[in-house]
Amino acid sequence: MTHFVSHLEGAIDGTRLEFGRIYNLHAGKPIVVRYDLAAVRKVVTPTDIATRPPTLWRYRELLPLPLDVEPVTLGEGMTPLLKCDRLGGELGLPNLFVKDESQLPTGSFKSRGMTAAVSMAKWLGVKRVALPTAGNAGGGAAAYAARAGLECFVFMPQDTPVVSHFEPHLYGAKAFRVNGLINDCGKIVKDGTEPMGWFDLSTLKEPYRLEGKKTMGLELAEQFGWKLPDVILYPTGGGTGLIGMWKAFQELRELGWLKSDKMPRLISCQAEGCAPIVTAFDKGERFAELFPNAATAASGLRVPVAVADFLILDAIRASGGTAVAGAETAIAPWMKRASSREGISICPETAVCFDVLEKLIVNGDVKPSETVVVFNTGAATKYLEALPAELPLLEKERIDWDKIGA
Amino acid sequence: MTHFVSHLEGAIDGTRLEFGRIYNLHAGKPIVVRYDLAAVRKVVTPTDIATRPPTLWRYRELLPLPLDVEPVTLGEGMTPLLKCDRLGGELGLPNLFVKDESQLPTGSFKSRGMTAAVSMAKWLGVKRVALPTAGNAGGGAAAYAARAGLECFVFMPQDTPVVSHFEPHLYGAKAFRVNGLINDCGKIVKDGTEPMGWFDLSTLKEPYRLEGKKTMGLELAEQFGWKLPDVILYPTGGGTGLIGMWKAFQELRELGWLKSDKMPRLISCQAEGCAPIVTAFDKGERFAELFPNAATAASGLRVPVAVADFLILDAIRASGGTAVAGAETAIAPWMKRASSREGISICPETAVCFDVLEKLIVNGDVKPSETVVVFNTGAATKYLEALPAELPLLEKERIDWDKIGA
Ligand SMILES: Cc1ncc(COP(=O)(O)O)c(C=O)c1O
Ligand SMILES: Cc1ncc(COP(=O)(O)O)c(C=O)c1O
Repeated sequence: MTHFVSHLEGAIDGTRLEFGRIYNLHAGKPIVVRYDLAAVRKVVTPTDIATRPPTLWRYRELLPLPLDVEPVTLGEGMTPLLKCDRLGGELGLPNLFVKDESQLPTGSFKSRGMTAAVSMAKWLGVKRVALPTAGNAGGGAAAYAARAGLECFVFMPQDTPVVSHFEPHLYGAKAFRVNGLINDCGKIVKDGTEPMGWFDLSTLKEPYRLEGKKTMGLELAEQFGWKLPDVILYPTGGGTGLIGMWKAFQELRELGWLKSDKMPRLISCQAEGCAPIVTAFDKGERFAELFPNAATAASGLRVPVAVADFLILDAIRASGGTAVAGAETAIAPWMKRASSREGISICPETAVCFDVLEKLIVNGDVKPSETVVVFNTGAATKYLEALPAELPLLEKERIDWDKIGA
Repeated sequence: MTHFVSHLEGAIDGTRLEFGRIYNLHAGKPIVVRYDLAAVRKVVTPTDIATRPPTLWRYRELLPLPLDVEPVTLGEGMTPLLKCDRLGGELGLPNLFVKDESQLPTGSFKSRGMTAAVSMAKWLGVKRVALPTAGNAGGGAAAYAARAGLECFVFMPQDTPVVSHFEPHLYGAKAFRVNGLINDCGKIVKDGTEPMGWFDLSTLKEPYRLEGKKTMGLELAEQFGWKLPDVILYPTGGGTGLIGMWKAFQELRELGWLKSDKMPRLISCQAEGCAPIVTAFDKGERFAELFPNAATAASGLRVPVAVADFLILDAIRASGGTAVAGAETAIAPWMKRASSREGISICPETAVCFDVLEKLIVNGDVKPSETVVVFNTGAATKYLEALPAELPLLEKERIDWDKIGA
């Protein structure tokens, strides 16, 4: 046996689909991968995994790529889980951690999804991929497509931060700006699939980015000694991160690898300028409505409609978690505050999580005794526009020491 | 024994200095750390190291911080060593590797030096650090100072790339631009040391950044199974990378951890707009003269005078290597070419290395059979100015499919 996938499954109705073919959606909804976990349990243990190289491919048996196929990799994964004592002290949380995804290739957690999806696409014979992006996915896809030797087409909203223009260009992708939002970009990709021969790599519109993202949950478990924290705050756009982690936790529980079956509460964090999941959660609904006039500096959260809305909402509820919107005005201050307290490059999306965390501490939903993990999904440096830096200029001929300050 | 440092040593004259005090230069030249390697050999083996977490602190016994002191860390180190078959194929090198330092905190290899230097400074009681920077060191210092809770002052040339303005600002450092070059910035730091109570964190003006950089050599050895490659190309500015790796290799040889004592040839790569080491190497001199009118898009290489010039030149010569200047006009094309072939975010400094590599292959100095490692010392995204991206704009109301292309 060269892989442990038992089948693929339509997430909306449980339809079984055969592994090894090219798929996008099923009945207009996401497809997820199922594994023969009993077989996995027989061939590998956490102790084996501990001896493997520090990339996400250490969880090879829980990933869809057959074992005898070389992954398309840039050495991604095993990002640091950083204890944050200074920030934790200020917030009254002695056990606050940041999982720092900014240290991945292309500076965001999108690399995880892309190493899995591009590896699978290449293996399945795909030659050209296309995707809409809020910014980071485009850079990630372009990098992995370059590594794989695939053609890549990227479509992003016109006002996406400049670093996200730079990346696909650098990696030789064909990249375009669009006078609209990510769903408008998604439509171009959809329309182009047939005539252009593109494989649609949109988030949750193919089954494998989710499997890559899942490794955030696997790493978290391993890094905590196969236990899970009490609370996880995650910035939610398309939802792959949250859904992927929840899937990982269920797989680990079924494998029997967890020392305790207590699951973390998932806190889905969105920006008030684009909070469709928060709205649906508050209304008790399983599907979200398109969020009107979506606008936020946390560009990764500017996803007014998510194809996997019901999977996000199911996971939050099953975990006993919640969905909360952070304030737009809190973004720049929290980027600076969190980054300058801990030396971590905190992105706007994660700044939103810190605003949400502060609220949950105040209202008692997060207790000081709890172990809390905030995901830093990307590097602040990818959002130069969010925190303009105007450094004072000194003249070397006559240094103004007062300007330098005490 | 809580550390394995035997003593510090003035590099120019071998003077022994006692460990555990605050030092900058000795006789105007760098100070290096010496270890009791016989004692190290007794307590740790490569097999022990293999089981430790994937950060550069796994080489703890070869680092100066006492074992019972917590390092100031962001989880840095064990960067991927990526086989580059597409690029290697084009260059006729079947064994070409890139060691990808762009995946470190703050997107450059400077993190290695900073985790070591800031950990030591904190331990020794320093409260405020200051440094000149070509760009990356400032971001790195600011991040680690923030993590340590130290004050940080950063001085950079006026025309340093914008991401390097953003970083120290983000991390709460006091950062300034100066109408001059890095040596002018260095003078401000020097002049401010007394009145401002700064500790001078300039490259090779304190002993510990070098120890952090050394881990590039340690990782390379471990990742190649305790063997070393034939050739290493390294972009040289202040020289810590090159000197540090050479120091690492000598320590490993003395420890007996290497399967073969054959040392790599070190190729010091500089940009033709600022090539003081190349000039001195060609003239057969041990000290370099100030390079006049230094100018290059590879801003990390814009170091017209290096305090450790003799250590760089000694290492190159001892290794049987050479120093070569890459063409300024090759920088942008090589950034794009190398990045788009392999999906790695190749910085301008490393683009220079690829130009040099191409020359050395042509003139026969690098043979197709050799194992060649190019260090990618930083992320291309830190140099937006070097490769302007103007993405075409599409109108969602009427998509111009011809513009998207075939
Ligand atoms: C930095 C960052 N954080 C979070 C998200 C949301 O991602 P998802 O909900 O798909 O996991 C994105 C998506 O673009 C992002 O770029
Ligand atoms: C990206 C990059 N590469 C290379 C260098 C040269 O560093 P060194 O010679 O000190 O190792 C620098 C220094 O600023 C840099 O930022």
